[in-house]
Amino acid sequence: MYRTHTCGELRIENVNQTVTLAGWIQRLRKMGGMTFVDLRDRYGITQLAFNQEVNSELFEQANKMGREWVIQITGNVAERYSKNQNIPTGDIEIIVSDLQVLNTSATPPFTIEDESDGGDDLRMQYRYLDLRRSVVRKNLELRHKMAIAIRSYMDKEGFLEVETPVLIKSTPEGARDFVVPSRMNPGEFYALPQSPQQFKQLLMVSGFDRYFQIVKCFRDEDLRADRQPEFTQVDCEMSFVHQEDILQMFEGLIKYLFREIRGIDFKEPFLRMTWADAMKYYGSDKPDMRFGMTFKELKPFTEGHGFSVFDSAEYVGAICAPGCAAYTRKQLDELTEFVKRPQIGAKGLVYVKCEAGGTFKSSVDKFYSQEDLKQWADFCEAKEGDLLLILCGQTMATRKSLNELRLEMGRRLGFCDKNKFAPLWVIDFPMFEWDEETQRFYAMHHPFTSPKKEDIQYLESDPGRVCADAYDMVINGVELGGGSIRIHDSVLQHRIFKALGFTDEKAEYQFGFLMNAFKFGAPPHGGLAFGFDRMVSMFAGLDSIRDCIAFPKNNSGRDTMSGAPSLIDDSQLDELCLKINLPTKE
Amino acid sequence: MYRTHTCGELRIENVNQTVTLAGWIQRLRKMGGMTFVDLRDRYGITQLAFNQEVNSELFEQANKMGREWVIQITGNVAERYSKNQNIPTGDIEIIVSDLQVLNTSATPPFTIEDESDGGDDLRMQYRYLDLRRSVVRKNLELRHKMAIAIRSYMDKEGFLEVETPVLIKSTPEGARDFVVPSRMNPGEFYALPQSPQQFKQLLMVSGFDRYFQIVKCFRDEDLRADRQPEFTQVDCEMSFVHQEDILQMFEGLIKYLFREIRGIDFKEPFLRMTWADAMKYYGSDKPDMRFGMTFKELKPFTEGHGFSVFDSAEYVGAICAPGCAAYTRKQLDELTEFVKRPQIGAKGLVYVKCEAGGTFKSSVDKFYSQEDLKQWADFCEAKEGDLLLILCGQTMATRKSLNELRLEMGRRLGFCDKNKFAPLWVIDFPMFEWDEETQRFYAMHHPFTSPKKEDIQYLESDPGRVCADAYDMVINGVELGGGSIRIHDSVLQHRIFKALGFTDEKAEYQFGFLMNAFKFGAPPHGGLAFGFDRMVSMFAGLDSIRDCIAFPKNNSGRDTMSGAPSLIDDSQLDELCLKINLPTKE
Repeated sequence: MYRTHTCGELRIENVNQTVTLAGWIQRLRKMGGMTFVDLRDRYGITQLAFNQEVNSELFEQANKMGREWVIQITGNVAERYSKNQNIPTGDIEIIVSDLQVLNTSATPPFTIEDESDGGDDLRMQYRYLDLRRSVVRKNLELRHKMAIAIRSYMDKEGFLEVETPVLIKSTPEGARDFVVPSRMNPGEFYALPQSPQQFKQLLMVSGFDRYFQIVKCFRDEDLRADRQPEFTQVDCEMSFVHQEDILQMFEGLIKYLFREIRGIDFKEPFLRMTWADAMKYYGSDKPDMRFGMTFKELKPFTEGHGFSVFDSAEYVGAICAPGCAAYTRKQLDELTEFVKRPQIGAKGLVYVKCEAGGTFKSSVDKFYSQEDLKQWADFCEAKEGDLLLILCGQTMATRKSLNELRLEMGRRLGFCDKNKFAPLWVIDFPMFEWDEETQRFYAMHHPFTSPKKEDIQYLESDPGRVCADAYDMVINGVELGGGSIRIHDSVLQHRIFKALGFTDEKAEYQFGFLMNAFKFGAPPHGGLAFGFDRMVSMFAGLDSIRDCIAFPKNNSGRDTMSGAPSLIDDSQLDELCLKINLPTKE
Repeated sequence: MYRTHTCGELRIENVNQTVTLAGWIQRLRKMGGMTFVDLRDRYGITQLAFNQEVNSELFEQANKMGREWVIQITGNVAERYSKNQNIPTGDIEIIVSDLQVLNTSATPPFTIEDESDGGDDLRMQYRYLDLRRSVVRKNLELRHKMAIAIRSYMDKEGFLEVETPVLIKSTPEGARDFVVPSRMNPGEFYALPQSPQQFKQLLMVSGFDRYFQIVKCFRDEDLRADRQPEFTQVDCEMSFVHQEDILQMFEGLIKYLFREIRGIDFKEPFLRMTWADAMKYYGSDKPDMRFGMTFKELKPFTEGHGFSVFDSAEYVGAICAPGCAAYTRKQLDELTEFVKRPQIGAKGLVYVKCEAGGTFKSSVDKFYSQEDLKQWADFCEAKEGDLLLILCGQTMATRKSLNELRLEMGRRLGFCDKNKFAPLWVIDFPMFEWDEETQRFYAMHHPFTSPKKEDIQYLESDPGRVCADAYDMVINGVELGGGSIRIHDSVLQHRIFKALGFTDEKAEYQFGFLMNAFKFGAPPHGGLAFGFDRMVSMFAGLDSIRDCIAFPKNNSGRDTMSGAPSLIDDSQLDELCLKINLPTKE
């Protein structure tokens, strides 16, 4: 080893010991006849002292060094004159007697400090330098720790981690696959898994009983801010279980993680809410439960007063923003602008200020009397000083807009504390989603999801009302994971395929090997998958998953550090029997 | 849950309890008015009893069931009349009072028993049924257990598991990459990593200090029996270390695994051998140390006796096969045939039988006297009853042939006990390998491997004699892992690139981002990677890595179960701007 100790471990007890340290120069301060160096490694920072009077040659050598040089020193541990209470090694320093420069460094393009002066793009291009910043490294240390904790819980519960293949068969249903040309089978392709769904179900058919895997998955989608083409899932499946068993098992996992990682003890069971209620009261299948402001449906109270906007609307919904009655014209205009943004989609915003003395001021008081408004306020449980914000229109669309408004108000009102966690199970998802464009039903979860027993009777007559044994775990408005009970009965599976408009041939082509496996004694089974990047990001209090990934890609799927993707040799293409066929520019 | 207990946990203490079990029907035996069912799950087998007299309806129902049906039963635990000592639940049986058929099963194409009647191909096609066999499942349980143990050791030693990207930049050096077309960057490709080599070195530059990862890697090679296109590595890297530190750390890991997994305590340090000695005494860089039969060089003793085959050979080498002097003509002919096989490549085999009474019988006694042969035997430390087997020819080629012969004799003599483990570090590998075909040197390990300090002086004048700080861990003739100290000095790195015939442009194009990173203070570092599949396979006593992989591919890289790889839609190809360009058949 190039060192006897790390830069994080020496204390006052070590005074007078001779030690050897190695690390990077964080800072170098020249103070008259003394030069002080902050030596950094993963474990901490230790101050080195070079004294001109004691060893002028060493002192000169030290003064020639620069930031981020890698050095090895030997010296004596001494008590510091002025102690630094901010770091664990702050009581001591090393009086250096020997110095080896292990490597010099060019000047880094940004400062290696917790608050760096480097912009996002620059930090990504030099990610290996960005990773030197302890704030970034801590996220990856947390990620390591969480993976250890997850594996520990799962192992204790009898789950086996089984590696499923990365080079698999392409299944056109769902999101777009990344594909991998096969040289040995020219013209044919592997796909990279979007999830190990079919393999984990096969493992259940194999009697593995309890499977999990922390596994890379891939999705060739146009990337949004918080999506990566490769991401990591905690993928789980169990046999001989009902929905309740799965909820219990994985509520246990999340509680264990909060206890182990964040020291938070959730004693009560997590809240549960049906998908229908989530949509009705929050306009979202992943409501942020850190705060209230649930939706109130005002339609019955608004009709027949000559306000055609409300009268013609299918839905009129309000949220009550506590203490916001004093909002200025400007603030209300801002909110109106906010809801009218195309991604929110509302036509306008109606407000009711519940003012002191029980009076009301509203943008629609031309149409509604004080008594009318009082009725609304009472129904919304608004108190003096509160502000009702009302949207109207087509039901589902308006709920979605109102959800955005609710979240915006939550942020403005400081309700989105990153250190508060409000977990929720959303259950009873609809089985199918109707797609207007293609005029067919799609599986909301996936085609192997089991409908609720009591709804099976409606599969053919009224598919839209069939709910599934499907569930999502939502924390603070983030869908952390989700899953379902699977169909293990091949007759039922065929009815589902039919409802989804699959011909027998198409079902056979896409899922043939799984359907075939199910002929040989498939047990009842179900499972779920957590997004590990999101999970770490939430536990770390980050805004983006990118900062808990060592080498993330940008929004065009590019690694600006290595330059991937890149051109490959023609000889490689020839071996793969491929030709590039770029569209000609017009 | 569909069960109160698993099929592996009920004991005599549970007698009289009412229990519910679920699982697969392993066997169904009808004996007069009784039907016995062996119910199987991952945890074991429990006997169920159906009595015609007690419940004739249930009895009839049970008699209609078949192998591999999935059932759920409730019943009373009873002591068995005739106990089965071979299974832990053998003292009890369940007197069934309720039976639910959860799923029927088609007749499996092979028997789900430890000794199956299914051939390899059939078992792979129905891998999900093959995985029901406890002998196969046990390998995957072992794999899980070993991964847990490895992570536990690494975590305790301060290593962080960091996930490196799967979609990376293609680097044409080395084996062939699998590539992934990028839809968002048309005409460009990602590659799948052959190893996370460059990323783990970047993490060292980032100051991560100790990194590991159990990670899938990919190599598009023509597959041999024991190769898979995707395989799993235990990939490790450390900073501020010398070779000795790495050997100690990972010898520690392997010893820990042997202790935890196999209950074997290696108290002594592992043997170490230079690459040169391994080649000289075993003709292999991965000698099987479970037995001796080291090579003896007879050249000095054979010259000048008129035997031109020996006289014209660069090398004459012998092994001494203990107790084989009585080998028959037929046995010796077999060995001669063996060494003459093209993959072994010897021209012939010379033997000397050391017979009782100190006489010798040899295929070359026309040329050599009894005294000559005694001299050989003495030099080879052969005793009465032993057999010398001698090959000759060009040095390296003959050593390789003699290695094969030694291994064959080891197998014949029963020296290859799968429960005996002989670990070895092979060290001091040559830095470069000369390739006759392309007339250039190649990096034996990879171009970032550090030459030994004392050999740096020969880099330009005599590259062939330069040894590297590179090491392999070999157990029982299997290379379990290997690695090296890396170059952290950019001047030295340039000299190595030059010795390898890389132009600056080529080095920049292929390794630019790593070389760039090295400008910002790279620490001394090194590491290694273990083949996890091989490791599990060795601990499980398997002949092939295939049986410790849940869903392996065959020798054409095909998953015969799912049918991957397969054709993809033209629309997918269009999106990727690709055209398939199959060679026209002539």
